Amino acid sequence: MKAARFYGSRDVRIESIEAPSASDDRVLIAVEWCGICGSDLNEYVRGPMAVPSPPRGPHPLTGELLPVTMGHEFSGRVVQAPSSTLPPGTPVVVDPRLFCSGCIPCSTTATNCCDQIGFRGISGGGGGLSELVAVPPQMVYALPPGTDLAAAALIEPLTVGWHGVRLSGLQEFRDVPVLVVGAGPVGVAVVYVLRAHGANRIFVAEPAQKRREFLADMPEVVMVMDPAEVPVADKCREMTGGEGVAVVIDCAGAQAGFDAGCDALRFRGQHINLAAPKIPLAIPWYLTMKREALLKSSLAYDEADFRAVVDAYVAGRFEGVDRMITRRIPLEEVVEKGFEELTRPNDHIKILATPRGV
Amino acid sequence: MKAARFYGSRDVRIESIEAPSASDDRVLIAVEWCGICGSDLNEYVRGPMAVPSPPRGPHPLTGELLPVTMGHEFSGRVVQAPSSTLPPGTPVVVDPRLFCSGCIPCSTTATNCCDQIGFRGISGGGGGLSELVAVPPQMVYALPPGTDLAAAALIEPLTVGWHGVRLSGLQEFRDVPVLVVGAGPVGVAVVYVLRAHGANRIFVAEPAQKRREFLADMPEVVMVMDPAEVPVADKCREMTGGEGVAVVIDCAGAQAGFDAGCDALRFRGQHINLAAPKIPLAIPWYLTMKREALLKSSLAYDEADFRAVVDAYVAGRFEGVDRMITRRIPLEEVVEKGFEELTRPNDHIKILATPRGV
Repeated sequence: MKAARFYGSRDVRIESIEAPSASDDRVLIAVEWCGICGSDLNEYVRGPMAVPSPPRGPHPLTGELLPVTMGHEFSGRVVQAPSSTLPPGTPVVVDPRLFCSGCIPCSTTATNCCDQIGFRGISGGGGGLSELVAVPPQMVYALPPGTDLAAAALIEPLTVGWHGVRLSGLQEFRDVPVLVVGAGPVGVAVVYVLRAHGANRIFVAEPAQKRREFLADMPEVVMVMDPAEVPVADKCREMTGGEGVAVVIDCAGAQAGFDAGCDALRFRGQHINLAAPKIPLAIPWYLTMKREALLKSSLAYDEADFRAVVDAYVAGRFEGVDRMITRRIPLEEVVEKGFEELTRPNDHIKILATPRGV
Repeated sequence: MKAARFYGSRDVRIESIEAPSASDDRVLIAVEWCGICGSDLNEYVRGPMAVPSPPRGPHPLTGELLPVTMGHEFSGRVVQAPSSTLPPGTPVVVDPRLFCSGCIPCSTTATNCCDQIGFRGISGGGGGLSELVAVPPQMVYALPPGTDLAAAALIEPLTVGWHGVRLSGLQEFRDVPVLVVGAGPVGVAVVYVLRAHGANRIFVAEPAQKRREFLADMPEVVMVMDPAEVPVADKCREMTGGEGVAVVIDCAGAQAGFDAGCDALRFRGQHINLAAPKIPLAIPWYLTMKREALLKSSLAYDEADFRAVVDAYVAGRFEGVDRMITRRIPLEEVVEKGFEELTRPNDHIKILATPRGV
């Protein structure tokens, strides 16, 4: 079968490799659509980092070293499911996480913080940028017949946002002022997740004009700011009667955005980090102490999040989310029209590839 | 009356100034004992910082500029209380905070985060390093006859620790593993506060041998580590079956201690900062994300904390806390035997001064 395999920085190759097969503990799935994640791009530009490579040895949960088949944001259809009731053709999405089930975080139900956490694709085990994947039945989530499987490939990134929003402890966001810092793919996913939680007072800070425009016509997004032009924290206070926002969700991971987010918070407001800052960020104590702010860090998601997002997706709570898809390409062109495209200045939110023809 | 007045860095003078007087909204108190706080010392060495000085103008709540009478950790006896039922001679402690009551934090009951927060002493309004102070009746807390007023001067620093511990949201600390980073005056106060909350699994990291020895014979302190010798986080995991501590209270404010504290946390453990870091601290994302740690910042205390600590003190929940007092000096000698002593290498926890003769 065809697969996009990562060999090293700027070296992803479309190759013909042996196809996986179904077994008692593996459902065979024909991939329909697979997104390119920021972490995939990171590997493409600077890797191998998370991808297991010789100096650090194979990933403990897959036993694999590069080359690995990339892609963990994918949807598809069941080909064969020996130990499950899923009939062939069933539309599905896959929780791509790899976790050990035995470590302390796993055994206290925090599988997202598994000591050996990995992701199908980057960590080996097969990936969505291929024709077929074989995954454990408990990681497969069936979708209703007729589901748009391109939009369903967004379920994984939506789940990343869902977990961050869930960390707030708030179930309902109606009338809760929230600031989203950074409107890249994760920031936009967070906006859709907040909307699915009833949020109607979303503020967004984002330097790129096209990204601001993308969000500007959503009625729940009441303010989209260019941080180069607008004093973000002052503006948030102005819009909240002087109080500040209850929650900041940081999807940028830069010092200026971190400072602005902490400054925008109200007393005991919470700052939730969903970014993976590339440089260490300094805590602006003056701002966080003054407000007794809570700083939280969100890591991936767990099975409860995945279930919740699939249910919300099926229930129509992510209406219009397919707008996030800014390009659809054939798998064969994923290097030039996918990875390379994303290394250049661009306005993409999500590029999806398919092995089945666009 | 005699008063120790701050004029500038290394310039505190014992002077004779006009005594305050009682009024309908001021209780006149004869000071018995007053402690020197880290923030006082900070002003002495590097000030004026919090002390209002000409470049920034007077403190908005006192209208005062330096020189100010220092001291906010004090106990005393009522001299005259026109609008209150407190008879002369009543032993008391004073909540030394100054807050506006009108700003958003104040009006949502978070008076500790008042936009104009100040402290009697450093911010003007009279201070405990003098013979007499006049303060609003609602800031005066009566103590039982026969109270040891030297130990009662520790109530204010205990309240700082109490607020930090309260931020954890835990009422009871029995069998909860807690790491205290730094065993200076604040760290030791936190240990006493934790003990008053039933804590019996307190770990402490502190580089100074004398400070380690001070805590080593408290049965609730099960481990006192020298971070130069012991890998603090590893040791905490070892002592908690691999899991890590539930709560870290950072009373040091240094990068190494911050990193060790974040590393020692268990999944979704909380790191509570009680220090005022002198340099910006970088968040060790790798550690905080992996654990989805909560980072909190504690600022001073509010009236609920002060009431709670006075009640706990009267109920005997701080038994033995007078061990924190490592020197008692007359007010006249507060510069040389107090401030200067603390600028030199020393093993003091708390130095108390009295205007009434040692």
